[in-house]
Amino acid sequence: MRRIKLTLEYDGTRFAGFQRQAKGERTVQAELESALAQIPGAVPKVVAAGRTDAGVHALGMVVHYDTEDRIPPEKIPYALNRLLPPDVRALAAEAAPPGFHARYSCHWRRYRYRILNRQMPSALARERTWWVPKPLDANAMQQGLAHFLGEHDFKAFATQERRGTVRTLYRARLERCGEEIVIDLVGNGFLRGQVRAMVGTLVEVGLGKRDPDVIAWLLAHGERKDAGPSAPPQGLYFVAAGYAPWNGS
Amino acid sequence: MRRIKLTLEYDGTRFAGFQRQAKGERTVQAELESALAQIPGAVPKVVAAGRTDAGVHALGMVVHYDTEDRIPPEKIPYALNRLLPPDVRALAAEAAPPGFHARYSCHWRRYRYRILNRQMPSALARERTWWVPKPLDANAMQQGLAHFLGEHDFKAFATQERRGTVRTLYRARLERCGEEIVIDLVGNGFLRGQVRAMVGTLVEVGLGKRDPDVIAWLLAHGERKDAGPSAPPQGLYFVAAGYAPWNGS
Repeated sequence: MRRIKLTLEYDGTRFAGFQRQAKGERTVQAELESALAQIPGAVPKVVAAGRTDAGVHALGMVVHYDTEDRIPPEKIPYALNRLLPPDVRALAAEAAPPGFHARYSCHWRRYRYRILNRQMPSALARERTWWVPKPLDANAMQQGLAHFLGEHDFKAFATQERRGTVRTLYRARLERCGEEIVIDLVGNGFLRGQVRAMVGTLVEVGLGKRDPDVIAWLLAHGERKDAGPSAPPQGLYFVAAGYAPWNGS
Repeated sequence: MRRIKLTLEYDGTRFAGFQRQAKGERTVQAELESALAQIPGAVPKVVAAGRTDAGVHALGMVVHYDTEDRIPPEKIPYALNRLLPPDVRALAAEAAPPGFHARYSCHWRRYRYRILNRQMPSALARERTWWVPKPLDANAMQQGLAHFLGEHDFKAFATQERRGTVRTLYRARLERCGEEIVIDLVGNGFLRGQVRAMVGTLVEVGLGKRDPDVIAWLLAHGERKDAGPSAPPQGLYFVAAGYAPWNGS
């Protein structure tokens, strides 16, 4: 039995998120496992580096699955793309060491959030960005963003109350690119809803409703109700997941 | 009666093109005229700077219509956006001089074509770009593109045989932006299918199937069958239309 590391791109618009749901809604996992079920030898059960909510996209989600098929790894994306719907594409596959685990072996995860900051809404970017019509102060947002860097208890930015809310943010960048403000985040892990709560709070900073230093206070003392609202899903992208190198990788 | 110049963005994916069809298919014109019909005083009949085929997008299509409503022009986009479907957005409106005509007064039109040039297909860009998996030689394409500049008979690049196939191309740029090759064209006018035939031919140049200088020959002596295939619609964008300035504009 081989373990395959697979990289996927998907358009989250018409999915009820990544994870298979009891109710049988359309999810990326269900589509992917249905495709794998058609490959003799493949175990139709995948584990992902991260889970994304309904409407959230991925440019490079990493999953693993086990298989006894003999398809050379570099051919797997072509085989899967014939079986997958067009809003999920396999980009790359490689044989992984047996101990490899898409979630537990993951060293870092990278997310991007795209805000469309212009007066009028967009037809073309409506399912790809969060439209914020009022002018945002990108400098203030950048100041707020810097507070997130490093190891913190992110419980004020988590959707669900639970234990273990300490995470480390390795990189946090914000750039204005024409009409867009793009936020790039790299961390060892992210809590459910964390990026969207961070972005929602930063937008309040950008609108002048809050001081950039409120982020420091929220990280030290805040509860979820103290932070800003969740940014909508369609601006969020799971960009990449990083692993320790292994032989041949 | 006032004449209004209106600028629109639309996602062409779920439209059978701009122009209203006898068969009652979903078109941008039909959606826009239905919206105008709900504004008392507005004549629900629009004329556009250009027509786009099914699947072709617009970032800044210009149309005109006549109206006796008293909505201040700067409020019109908001009024229309409440009546239009989300894949069409009104971006700007202004009162135009009575002689203004979106098609006949137009001095130049600008189109963009986006090619996704990478080995693997994209889930997120599938309705926004033409995916060409084989590597394209952007330099060769640029050489070919330069031949199109200036006044030429574009009949070898027109879908329909008809009289009056001379057009002037003012600007032609090609840029590689990461995994994309983006072609920007500005001309006094474009024949039906012209941009897609130009791009389809340039891609054959980029693949090494044709010499860049074939463009000069095609412009001088070619018929439509001699040029390359039409590039698919989803990579094409109507970007802007230019008019002579008038008082207050």
